[in-house]
Amino acid sequence: MSRFFSKKYSMLEPYVPGEQPSDMDRYIKLNTNESPFPPSDKAMAMAHSLTRSLQLYSDPDSVELTKALAKTYNVEPDMVAVSNGSDEILNFAFMAYTDKENPALFADITYGFYPVFAQINASAYELIPLREDFSLCADDYIGRRGTVFIANPNAPTGMALPVSEIERIVKADQDRIVVVDEAYVDFGAESCVGLVRRYPNILVCQTFSKSRSFAGGRLGYAIGSREIIADLNTIKYSTNPYNVNSMTSAMGVAILADEEYTRANCRTIMDNRDFTVDGLRKMGFRVLDSRANFIFVSSDRIGGGDFYRAMKERGILIRHFTRDRIADWCRVSIGSRQSMEAFLRTTGDILAALDD
Amino acid sequence: MSRFFSKKYSMLEPYVPGEQPSDMDRYIKLNTNESPFPPSDKAMAMAHSLTRSLQLYSDPDSVELTKALAKTYNVEPDMVAVSNGSDEILNFAFMAYTDKENPALFADITYGFYPVFAQINASAYELIPLREDFSLCADDYIGRRGTVFIANPNAPTGMALPVSEIERIVKADQDRIVVVDEAYVDFGAESCVGLVRRYPNILVCQTFSKSRSFAGGRLGYAIGSREIIADLNTIKYSTNPYNVNSMTSAMGVAILADEEYTRANCRTIMDNRDFTVDGLRKMGFRVLDSRANFIFVSSDRIGGGDFYRAMKERGILIRHFTRDRIADWCRVSIGSRQSMEAFLRTTGDILAALDD
Repeated sequence: MSRFFSKKYSMLEPYVPGEQPSDMDRYIKLNTNESPFPPSDKAMAMAHSLTRSLQLYSDPDSVELTKALAKTYNVEPDMVAVSNGSDEILNFAFMAYTDKENPALFADITYGFYPVFAQINASAYELIPLREDFSLCADDYIGRRGTVFIANPNAPTGMALPVSEIERIVKADQDRIVVVDEAYVDFGAESCVGLVRRYPNILVCQTFSKSRSFAGGRLGYAIGSREIIADLNTIKYSTNPYNVNSMTSAMGVAILADEEYTRANCRTIMDNRDFTVDGLRKMGFRVLDSRANFIFVSSDRIGGGDFYRAMKERGILIRHFTRDRIADWCRVSIGSRQSMEAFLRTTGDILAALDD
Repeated sequence: MSRFFSKKYSMLEPYVPGEQPSDMDRYIKLNTNESPFPPSDKAMAMAHSLTRSLQLYSDPDSVELTKALAKTYNVEPDMVAVSNGSDEILNFAFMAYTDKENPALFADITYGFYPVFAQINASAYELIPLREDFSLCADDYIGRRGTVFIANPNAPTGMALPVSEIERIVKADQDRIVVVDEAYVDFGAESCVGLVRRYPNILVCQTFSKSRSFAGGRLGYAIGSREIIADLNTIKYSTNPYNVNSMTSAMGVAILADEEYTRANCRTIMDNRDFTVDGLRKMGFRVLDSRANFIFVSSDRIGGGDFYRAMKERGILIRHFTRDRIADWCRVSIGSRQSMEAFLRTTGDILAALDD
């Protein structure tokens, strides 16, 4: 930190993204919840023809992309905002709806960026502990003042709440916003997008980074009431109006035009998830009930840190978080069938080596 | 503004980007300082082969792009930060180096986003009036406390300070940062990048949007001391770590590999600028001395607003700002020779119509 850096950030602890080793080709990468599938050839070809002249500014309102998203989710275009990845729009929501007086409320175990967003915006926040079994209980958020952030499915657990439980939180206090971060919703969870027309105080955030195979393109979006979307766009026009570039925008439209490809990939990931969960349980692992493209696993036979390191030595990257409550666990992204077979085989090898 | 919106933004006035009419094809567009030339075919082809798999996250450190920029400007890679357009990195600089106690100092007539950045970050700011002739006087910034933001060349005037004058400001008070926004530097002004090794308190921001024909790709960067760059990256890792997507990053590397194309385009723009300035002066216009890809013009025969509207009626978009001090003036981007011939011809028509 330079001696010039504003004192307001003196306590800031930046987010640490998942490991991206430079010798990536050496590893099977199951640590950052990316898709094993590229965007479809059809989408790539279509995007090429849709990309606006690159010497011109991108459309700050991303009209075509916003329209395509609105059609996909059966809402009006002014109920959709787009962003440079969903982190950007989550940060906008922290900026708009939390401050020193109005705290952010989120789980103790959830997406690690939430406390960082709160800190960078000098907002108060409260951690609401998940239950012993890592489930999130709606009642813990009812009767408590503050803007709620719920990742559903949650990360790194993969566990999901039904819409009816989130609706209870939204309905109980309509004077505060509930942000539902649905980055992983397409892998078997229920989406809250349907609640957006009925409640003016819910914002649903999604991303093209997981089910839509476009993490490298950086495209996120949020769906909410006109008033909330207008707030988020006020923030955007006060920080970075041209936040979504022309190539990403065109790819977004093209990817939405090929939803069958996305759905087929999601089905494959869910099949591979079932396959991996079965294999791990047969080897005595605890695996939480995941509705995401990753699973959260632990074993009495090997600690989380040891499992992570043993995997890395054998060429497979998974993610381990050192925080006390989840230090025994590892998060494993669901990749191709071949990758998951390699993961299970390697798990067997690691356990066998313990017996030596 | 929704009833949920944080009170801290109640006075916020977002930035208003230049007009982007939906029936764009009807207009010769000289209102947003874009390049009339597309990125080179060579760069486009090279970028294609450099783009990392889109299903994987982009490199949060943008290592290849940062290296290419460092090589281009003869600095070390850890003296370079990249961003989603230069607006993002300017906002980061406002976040890092201004607050309620430490004001931002900038000209009364300059890039209209600076006061917005100050407001969204709840930072104090002071407007330092340009002299009567729109020149910026270094002495006005010396002996005054605060972080300095200077657009050089300035917008919308196009006028530039020599490096020696900016160096005086940087040197006079090495306990505060001077940010030099060089978005338009490649059209005949002197760059301050050479000062970066000698002074730890200067940050130079540039963009691919103007001379490098890549406004639609959204790519900005800043060059400064290691400590300053580390500060900016702390902000990035606390808001949006993957801020530059893989396609934009690859295009950036490819565009830098074809600098001869960029230089040739800049020469053409400067020639077209001379041609346009000559033509306007012959028709009695005042034209400020521009080192940018735009000119700032006024005439005793027609007001700024009237000139803007008469041009728009005739299919040419230029930019008019309603603020008192510059209400008589219009900013005209320099496009292709053909566009500038049309602009001069139309100017003649507009003046002739006044005589009827």
